[in-house]
Amino acid sequence: MAQTGVLRPGFIQLRVLDMAAAVEHYTNRIGLHQVTEGPDGRVYLKSADEFDHHSFVLRRASEAGVDLMAFKVLNDSDLDMFERRIVEYGFPVDHVPAGEQPGVGRRIGWTIASGHRIELFSHADQSDPKPAIENPGVWLECPHGMRARRFDHALFYGPHVDKNLDFFTKALDFRLAEQVETPDGVFAIWLSCGMKAHDIAFVKYPEPNKLHHAAFELENWNDIGHAADILTHYDMSLDLGPTRHGITRGQTIYFFDPSGNRNEVFCGGYTYYPDHPTRTWDEAHIGKAIFYYERVLNEAFLSVVT
Amino acid sequence: MAQTGVLRPGFIQLRVLDMAAAVEHYTNRIGLHQVTEGPDGRVYLKSADEFDHHSFVLRRASEAGVDLMAFKVLNDSDLDMFERRIVEYGFPVDHVPAGEQPGVGRRIGWTIASGHRIELFSHADQSDPKPAIENPGVWLECPHGMRARRFDHALFYGPHVDKNLDFFTKALDFRLAEQVETPDGVFAIWLSCGMKAHDIAFVKYPEPNKLHHAAFELENWNDIGHAADILTHYDMSLDLGPTRHGITRGQTIYFFDPSGNRNEVFCGGYTYYPDHPTRTWDEAHIGKAIFYYERVLNEAFLSVVT
Amino acid sequence: MAQTGVLRPGFIQLRVLDMAAAVEHYTNRIGLHQVTEGPDGRVYLKSADEFDHHSFVLRRASEAGVDLMAFKVLNDSDLDMFERRIVEYGFPVDHVPAGEQPGVGRRIGWTIASGHRIELFSHADQSDPKPAIENPGVWLECPHGMRARRFDHALFYGPHVDKNLDFFTKALDFRLAEQVETPDGVFAIWLSCGMKAHDIAFVKYPEPNKLHHAAFELENWNDIGHAADILTHYDMSLDLGPTRHGITRGQTIYFFDPSGNRNEVFCGGYTYYPDHPTRTWDEAHIGKAIFYYERVLNEAFLSVVT
Amino acid sequence: MAQTGVLRPGFIQLRVLDMAAAVEHYTNRIGLHQVTEGPDGRVYLKSADEFDHHSFVLRRASEAGVDLMAFKVLNDSDLDMFERRIVEYGFPVDHVPAGEQPGVGRRIGWTIASGHRIELFSHADQSDPKPAIENPGVWLECPHGMRARRFDHALFYGPHVDKNLDFFTKALDFRLAEQVETPDGVFAIWLSCGMKAHDIAFVKYPEPNKLHHAAFELENWNDIGHAADILTHYDMSLDLGPTRHGITRGQTIYFFDPSGNRNEVFCGGYTYYPDHPTRTWDEAHIGKAIFYYERVLNEAFLSVVT
Repeated sequence: MAQTGVLRPGFIQLRVLDMAAAVEHYTNRIGLHQVTEGPDGRVYLKSADEFDHHSFVLRRASEAGVDLMAFKVLNDSDLDMFERRIVEYGFPVDHVPAGEQPGVGRRIGWTIASGHRIELFSHADQSDPKPAIENPGVWLECPHGMRARRFDHALFYGPHVDKNLDFFTKALDFRLAEQVETPDGVFAIWLSCGMKAHDIAFVKYPEPNKLHHAAFELENWNDIGHAADILTHYDMSLDLGPTRHGITRGQTIYFFDPSGNRNEVFCGGYTYYPDHPTRTWDEAHIGKAIFYYERVLNEAFLSVVT
Repeated sequence: MAQTGVLRPGFIQLRVLDMAAAVEHYTNRIGLHQVTEGPDGRVYLKSADEFDHHSFVLRRASEAGVDLMAFKVLNDSDLDMFERRIVEYGFPVDHVPAGEQPGVGRRIGWTIASGHRIELFSHADQSDPKPAIENPGVWLECPHGMRARRFDHALFYGPHVDKNLDFFTKALDFRLAEQVETPDGVFAIWLSCGMKAHDIAFVKYPEPNKLHHAAFELENWNDIGHAADILTHYDMSLDLGPTRHGITRGQTIYFFDPSGNRNEVFCGGYTYYPDHPTRTWDEAHIGKAIFYYERVLNEAFLSVVT
Repeated sequence: MAQTGVLRPGFIQLRVLDMAAAVEHYTNRIGLHQVTEGPDGRVYLKSADEFDHHSFVLRRASEAGVDLMAFKVLNDSDLDMFERRIVEYGFPVDHVPAGEQPGVGRRIGWTIASGHRIELFSHADQSDPKPAIENPGVWLECPHGMRARRFDHALFYGPHVDKNLDFFTKALDFRLAEQVETPDGVFAIWLSCGMKAHDIAFVKYPEPNKLHHAAFELENWNDIGHAADILTHYDMSLDLGPTRHGITRGQTIYFFDPSGNRNEVFCGGYTYYPDHPTRTWDEAHIGKAIFYYERVLNEAFLSVVT
Repeated sequence: MAQTGVLRPGFIQLRVLDMAAAVEHYTNRIGLHQVTEGPDGRVYLKSADEFDHHSFVLRRASEAGVDLMAFKVLNDSDLDMFERRIVEYGFPVDHVPAGEQPGVGRRIGWTIASGHRIELFSHADQSDPKPAIENPGVWLECPHGMRARRFDHALFYGPHVDKNLDFFTKALDFRLAEQVETPDGVFAIWLSCGMKAHDIAFVKYPEPNKLHHAAFELENWNDIGHAADILTHYDMSLDLGPTRHGITRGQTIYFFDPSGNRNEVFCGGYTYYPDHPTRTWDEAHIGKAIFYYERVLNEAFLSVVT
């Protein structure tokens, strides 16, 4: 039945310390467009290559980090179906009315074992800029900044990665594309709800509800190099890259937004299908798993989160 | 439920006039590997980046063209489910026993309105070379030739494109990603069973059961250029390119195998989701739809098929 | 003595029919910057990656084409030295005073056998934008449009290509990097004054003083693809490409400015040294020499000039 | 007079501890071809894109490092001219007879202030593989390994960088393309004898005659990524990259051969002309000068040499 149920990451809501600096970062550097600002000051952003109203939300706060990540489902009835399954699984579900975010319909939300809030929604208005659909050109306006094509996925840190794995695969029909296993059990998981190698990922960490990075997809390795040129030109804070991940094979750069939230821009990675075997890395290869070229973790990877 | 039902093009079986020349073409030029040769002389090929036993089958015959295209479904029970739906839709279904092709389980098959034979199967053995899954590197052996990463899709010519659209969307849950509409109705359709902009496509043509091209995916535009260098180095028959398609946005080259079957190597194209609107081209823009840079069709596009 | 004498193409002066359209084309599409407009209405342009005052001059006229191409020499004394050699060779030389073009010192000029006016100059003021030289970044402002990095070379059509070859090598110390030979003699020549595969080129043609194209260098094949996207987006007139030249190996697109002057954007090509042998193409391979992928000339190549 | 005198780096001779491992590294990994092995066991290598007999020489020794670097001059008479100038400058010159290396004519040699042996020669036989010159294709055989196109330059460490600057510019007509200046004077210099941003470079270091790296040119950033994939696949010793140099703008990877000699593969960088101003970096920007993306030196850069 082709892709049904959970389609993809719909949007993520991040906390930022300085809204003007954040908007400058995500529009002029990352290459998103500001769609609108809500009455409560939240700012809604998207790539010009996305149809939905927005895919990235910024909220001013005194501490950086992630408020929630919302996935889009295909049909409104999927929301009721998933609510039943999530409640049955053991998580209380609450309801967010349509319009709490401009252009987005009703949402259901709950907290997973790692302490993160996850939401589902099925309706989003379309907003400009968006791809043309009548005799469409490759783009309506030449991409700018790092030329981000979409908010693609997030990597979260928190406890109970094994419980997240169980929940996402049993209650939401995600698949385990890739994992790091240590003698203590599952250390990190990359979960797919479609044909991307990951839509959400988790790494084991003592503190709950932490953000490792929010990632934007670029077209190719050339755009990764261009993004690196932008990072240096504007003296932005680089974490690591350009490099490749062993996990997912994506080519990548990690860096930080002005509030200290880690961003990733990446390209490539294999096409995942639900009949593909899970790829597994052991503890001895974790450096190569994360940073394929350097083959060692940098200090920041395991410790710097928001 | 993430991706279910029909997953992807599993394999295509083409007729070739000279098997040795065909094998040389698809292995050393396109970059596939020969998995095995069957007792009836059919040759089974795959990319090293595919898990399944094979994705491309060559059969010696006195006339070039396509025998059949088979899609892989997720579960064995899907075969029964789809058989019921196809029969109910009005097409008689026949059964191909496991092992008719080495490494492939039971298949069901039928003929669609355009005269092409379509099959479904759910089981394939894995075969070497295939991607590693324990601490996997980017590749086990450096890609060769044009560095094809998978058999990706086919474009067929035949009558009753409108009927094919109805059938694939109603009986097999495909989605219409893109189409060309003329005053006479639907002229061409690009159908997706997952997140690719197309898994199979049809163009209206008076003769049934014709092959326009079988396509292989490459990593990027650089590999498209490299493929063009190979085409000239070996004096292979170019049709058109390097160029871009307006439809799907893919960057591409068309050329011919030694038997006259058209091949495509392409990269890129947008990610399709089932909630995306169908993109539509009208008659006035058909040149740009097909060859985005040239903005006119070449003579061969509408007339040369096998 | 490293590189001495004639260094490189300094600038070309083209005639355009509509100055506003031409400026829009060369700045917003090609990616140049307007430096200044002279009192006689000529417009002076450059790439932000060039130090010299300008490298491209537009003059309004009733007919498109080329007025002159000027090469920069290393020292002022080279002008006197070359004047003696050119006069001795047999061409009368005239003098253009400093300031005839803003920012450019005195020039000497003469007409070659093919009817084209060639000039030499040794001084140019620097102008903004130009590359930084103290702790310089990769660029001061992100390249725009087709991201042209320099005016690179021109291809002229006219009679007496053999005489041009004799003159440029004997009087100006150019080298013959590549040529097309036919039973009638030298048909086309690619001449280098440095380490580029060509700084100026000539193709045999009955009419004198014709421009085939003025070429801009891009960084890589990815930028060639981007340039093609721009061509279609703005519905500009494509001649051919993206493709590769056999001659020089450059990857390329030919298209036309609003006045009908042909432009090229290209990248790559081999590094030429004066001890390298001349590469030679014969008549049977002229298609491949010019359009390496198509392996045939298009009609426009031999007939459309300004 | 176009390029005269010193044309380019002709070859470098490195000491290696294990010849078989070295040959495997430079042929199958870097992508060179072995031309021949001399009677004394030295192995001569080249890229298939070079005309000259060889450009890279390996000598078995108990300690890694560099024996000499030889530049090719245009004419045999240049050897006498440069010998006079070098002797006059104050360095004793010795003579190496033709044939001391297979395929190479007579050489002159001397030791510069930093303790390195430099040589000049004007004749080299051509050897296979080399570029075709009659109706030449882009390549005769598809490039392999990291696809090195030429031995491009070397960076040496040693004392008296200021004296090297004086010597190379006064006696050999090199130009100073780029430098790092500290309060103690010139710290590092990048010297050009043609249109490349550097043909040889020096960094101040207490010990004489040290090799920092020998560099091979690749076509583009895509090949840099491919080279990084090869480094990890074969578990080779990475130093740093993929990254960009601020100096020269080249995109790059540093790594080590099996004997511990540092290699670089790089692409791009600006075109240098002798009328270009010298680019200068100060001490505060040295991190960005060397590693443009990381903006800090790694420990190895200043300490690991052979």
